[in-house]
Amino acid sequence: MSGPRDEIEALIAQMARLPGLGPRSARRAVLHLLRKREGQMAPLAAALSRVAETARDCPICGNIAMGASCEICDSPARAIGEICVVEDVADLWALERGGAFKGRYHVLGGTLSALDAIGPEELRIPQLIARIRAEAVTEVILALNATVEGQTTAHYIAEALEGTGVRVTSLAQGVPIGGELDYLDDGTISAALRARRAL
Amino acid sequence: MSGPRDEIEALIAQMARLPGLGPRSARRAVLHLLRKREGQMAPLAAALSRVAETARDCPICGNIAMGASCEICDSPARAIGEICVVEDVADLWALERGGAFKGRYHVLGGTLSALDAIGPEELRIPQLIARIRAEAVTEVILALNATVEGQTTAHYIAEALEGTGVRVTSLAQGVPIGGELDYLDDGTISAALRARRAL
Ligand SMILES: [Zn+2]
Ligand SMILES: [Zn+2]
Repeated sequence: MSGPRDEIEALIAQMARLPGLGPRSARRAVLHLLRKREGQMAPLAAALSRVAETARDCPICGNIAMGASCEICDSPARAIGEICVVEDVADLWALERGGAFKGRYHVLGGTLSALDAIGPEELRIPQLIARIRAEAVTEVILALNATVEGQTTAHYIAEALEGTGVRVTSLAQGVPIGGELDYLDDGTISAALRARRAL
Repeated sequence: MSGPRDEIEALIAQMARLPGLGPRSARRAVLHLLRKREGQMAPLAAALSRVAETARDCPICGNIAMGASCEICDSPARAIGEICVVEDVADLWALERGGAFKGRYHVLGGTLSALDAIGPEELRIPQLIARIRAEAVTEVILALNATVEGQTTAHYIAEALEGTGVRVTSLAQGVPIGGELDYLDDGTISAALRARRAL
């Protein structure tokens, strides 16, 4: 097919790359938007464009920021003493939905992996150690996935923080073996946070 | 929650209004885009914006057009004599995927419904009759859904076209009772088109 329809097909192909949308559901979504061009399609385009231009990685914690730093790092209400270490922003969002954690975060951006040649330098671990030296941190909560990679990473960080005098804990109760935080319900995450134990 | 995060939450809410995406999958889709802001989010915003600005309803057939009229009406390769009548653009796309129909379309924009006070005037039926008078149409193929409303509409159109000398046919074999065209596989649609029968 050639001609103006190509532009719509290209849009469908772009939508189909989103997680949870295949070619078929992407087509239905685009058709839905085509029917609501003024009410939904144009506003969605504007919102996406604004966020794409404005969003950045928070230079302090690695969260998504819409300003110079993220709103959690910016908030005077968040405890300075507690840093919760997560693999990625999805996990941070999952913890925020639970609402149980009142400290700040550190987003690693992944887990250690010898296979994929991902070492501490690739994971913002040096930045975490620098934060602990620079800020008045008393506790680091390792909220990593209960996978082999997540736990390997947790142990690496716990060892790296030995001798800093900082308490290192991890989520315990409620996280099922092999479970990924982002798939857990909010209550389970909150319970795991409350029952955290020293590593 | 207030502050810059609101903009991301608003974007998630907009995405969640798309068919096939709920709040949870919308969040994952937005997070995916936030991770690929330059490679995927900005291009998607641009494509949506371009299509939202350019797309319109084809004044001839009711298909989505990216120019003054749609590429099917514009194409000299499409037979002038056959008009395939469909409920909406999704059905037109489904027939085009089958690739068996070489004529042109007429999109009604719905079906007759006494309950919803949708009469012929709401459905581009007068425009269909005007096209048949103005263009060298020899056959009208009613490709309406095999639902009560679809078949009521088909019978209404068949009656309205009595005396025009135009052959009125409908998709027959292969369309299951209660079935909706947009959910059928391409082969079934093509078979139904080939086996069309006079009403
Ligand atoms: Zn931050
Ligand atoms: Zn057209």
